[in-house]
Amino acid sequence: MLSEKAKKVFEEPQLHVEDIQADKFQQQIDYIFQHSEFYREKFQKAGIERENIQSLNDLKKLPFTYKDEIRASQKKAPPLGTHAAADMEDIVRIHSSSGTTGRPTYTGITRQDYDVWTEMLARVCYTHGIRQDSKVVFAMGLSFFVGSAMKDGIERLGATFIPIGTGASDRVVRSIIDFQADVLFCTPSYATYLAEFVKKNYGMHPSELGLKLMSVGGEPGGGLPEVRRKIESEWNCKVMEAMGNADMAPVLFSECPEQKGMHFIGADNVICEIIDPETGEIVPESDHMEGELVYTAINRECVPLIRFRTRDLVQVDTTPCACGKKSFRLRCIGRTDDMLIIRGVNVFPSAIKDVVNSFRPKTTGEIRILLKEKPPLVNPPLPLKVEIANGLSEREQEALQKDVQAALRFKLFFTAEVELVSEGSLPRFEMKAKLTERLY
Amino acid sequence: MLSEKAKKVFEEPQLHVEDIQADKFQQQIDYIFQHSEFYREKFQKAGIERENIQSLNDLKKLPFTYKDEIRASQKKAPPLGTHAAADMEDIVRIHSSSGTTGRPTYTGITRQDYDVWTEMLARVCYTHGIRQDSKVVFAMGLSFFVGSAMKDGIERLGATFIPIGTGASDRVVRSIIDFQADVLFCTPSYATYLAEFVKKNYGMHPSELGLKLMSVGGEPGGGLPEVRRKIESEWNCKVMEAMGNADMAPVLFSECPEQKGMHFIGADNVICEIIDPETGEIVPESDHMEGELVYTAINRECVPLIRFRTRDLVQVDTTPCACGKKSFRLRCIGRTDDMLIIRGVNVFPSAIKDVVNSFRPKTTGEIRILLKEKPPLVNPPLPLKVEIANGLSEREQEALQKDVQAALRFKLFFTAEVELVSEGSLPRFEMKAKLTERLY
Ligand SMILES: [Zn+2]
Ligand SMILES: [Zn+2]
Repeated sequence: MLSEKAKKVFEEPQLHVEDIQADKFQQQIDYIFQHSEFYREKFQKAGIERENIQSLNDLKKLPFTYKDEIRASQKKAPPLGTHAAADMEDIVRIHSSSGTTGRPTYTGITRQDYDVWTEMLARVCYTHGIRQDSKVVFAMGLSFFVGSAMKDGIERLGATFIPIGTGASDRVVRSIIDFQADVLFCTPSYATYLAEFVKKNYGMHPSELGLKLMSVGGEPGGGLPEVRRKIESEWNCKVMEAMGNADMAPVLFSECPEQKGMHFIGADNVICEIIDPETGEIVPESDHMEGELVYTAINRECVPLIRFRTRDLVQVDTTPCACGKKSFRLRCIGRTDDMLIIRGVNVFPSAIKDVVNSFRPKTTGEIRILLKEKPPLVNPPLPLKVEIANGLSEREQEALQKDVQAALRFKLFFTAEVELVSEGSLPRFEMKAKLTERLY
Repeated sequence: MLSEKAKKVFEEPQLHVEDIQADKFQQQIDYIFQHSEFYREKFQKAGIERENIQSLNDLKKLPFTYKDEIRASQKKAPPLGTHAAADMEDIVRIHSSSGTTGRPTYTGITRQDYDVWTEMLARVCYTHGIRQDSKVVFAMGLSFFVGSAMKDGIERLGATFIPIGTGASDRVVRSIIDFQADVLFCTPSYATYLAEFVKKNYGMHPSELGLKLMSVGGEPGGGLPEVRRKIESEWNCKVMEAMGNADMAPVLFSECPEQKGMHFIGADNVICEIIDPETGEIVPESDHMEGELVYTAINRECVPLIRFRTRDLVQVDTTPCACGKKSFRLRCIGRTDDMLIIRGVNVFPSAIKDVVNSFRPKTTGEIRILLKEKPPLVNPPLPLKVEIANGLSEREQEALQKDVQAALRFKLFFTAEVELVSEGSLPRFEMKAKLTERLY
């Protein structure tokens, strides 16, 4: 059963989330001026006083917060950094994210932060379609922050949580069968592995296990249409994704059964902005705006974050969803690290792939962008390898090459130098689509 | 901060736990008659009607519940069995215990059971000496029921929970250092492994990490004095144990800093009886009574258990503890499966070991009891191998042999046939003391 608080935000449009946001934002700014050395200094440097922040409109005046600043803050004042704004005795949990190099970064939560996370995770599950009578087998670890929070959220929702962990496939299968479980949480690669495991060891087709929903996460890949299609057809169930951020919250976006993007579920705790990653300007509102996702916590004790740059490039959909939820949806289209700027225009590798994909089945859809210089600023013409399907005549190939170049010029405003390569010649990557290749 | 409820039970002796027990017991019996098919049938067979159970004194009239009955009940009515007394939609978590053979047994908890477990686990930590300002690194998995419950309990207590999980020793060490953590939860064997890891990879002595307390569990061995002494001297910290039961609750007994047995922390939720495992009679109360521990839940929704036979043989200490807590303490001295009955007298292998140990350093304390017939009923004289220390003269050996035999006769009332064997000749077992060897 969803808590009363959650129900209000979800099911009663007469409650204006903007009012809640405005109130909480002011309280959060008060809190920050009182408790966060990091933000006091940051605002002072930017010439911002408390009285300059009077409404939500003033948010855009505030400086961005970058992950590097968090790292530097923790290096300067280990372990939690000057941006942490709670006393250790009020912190009930600390998660570490290992990072690729050097020291881990730490995120702490107070009892209130814990409550907010749990509430949001319950909503994530509710949005997926999980209900009180759902039986949820959890085949991921619980020490990681998403796992811990998911456990708490599933239990708050009142579904039946069946934790198994990793490396115990027999117990996973056994639990699904014994409880006629309808939901499985796992990584996309485990979903694929488990399908083979079931066929080999139980002589059953995975679809016979009767799962209705698989929520995948913990590694890239679940969002790729081909990975998802494969899992869905093997298991005959819906595959859904959710998305969060190590510094802000385990999950803030969650797919509904319509599977047309992930709904934002955290409006009473987090404000989202969509900005141009180059200029930092807010992207003008439109049905399908694209840009970098920026978070501002309005309800955070241990790690307040103002205009935190996620580096996630998203496409936002504000049109009504058939599921009935009013909240906007998004899909992740890349990372700002991957973005290219060609003659002043932002171009995402995934957008190039989308254009090429529109020429299927003449092409396999597999591409490789060759970068002669360090992104994001690159100069046209852009060399681009495009895989063709077997059996195309020479004339068809010539036409395809010209058509792809024309489409790229028309849709993305740049000149490409398309080289057709034979089917299967571009190396495949298991999980993450690798769209670029560096020549510099 | 301990919740108000916990504080009352702990710190206000004017609150009579017996009154709470009596009230809750009646409510539990009502609940069982209403919701548990298993107990309705069981009581009917035993000729027990609702009105026969009017006070705590009537508890001893009720039949015991055996683990085998739980297994049979789950086999008869999978997955949770006829003894389960909650609807699936009210169950928020299910744990499976793998068992050595065949199908796993499942234990479910409702929201109220979850709350009771969490409260008890908070008390377990409080009894150890963990407080709101403690920083607790958790190097065990959280999918297992003890881990999940411990997480919830530590967080409810308000200490800082730092989950790391297994297989990430660098992150364990790093977290202890970065947060000046005072508490580590791990298995006894991991404590030993980690000491070597720290010396090898960090060039530090483990004691330099400054841990004050290590709570060990998850495998046998932490209770063995020699294992504990080794860990304590390596880490220069206290090693404490806790004990629970897969069917009743993750933890019900917890050591205090006095380290003289584990305090019972669950009196408002569980009634303990100490019985003679052979006759089933309640052991007459005394300061140091011994017998099998039997649990009755008085507050359980999903898995009510009446007079559940744990097979744990315990020695109970009802004398006041220097820590100030009034609750009785116990230590586990074996399993009923290990018990021997020699001419009508119960003899535990650990008791034989204790007698031999009193002759250290002439003996290493290592023994092996040779069983010519299937326990528990065995006939004297009992063949017993006792390891002697190096360097004993022939005359000293003769004397030792006679003295050990005399002490066993005097203290445990049976005749042994002691064979002295040389130091190091009995095989050692890493974690579990193996005291018997079967010859039949
Ligand atoms: Zn929707
Ligand atoms: Zn004590």
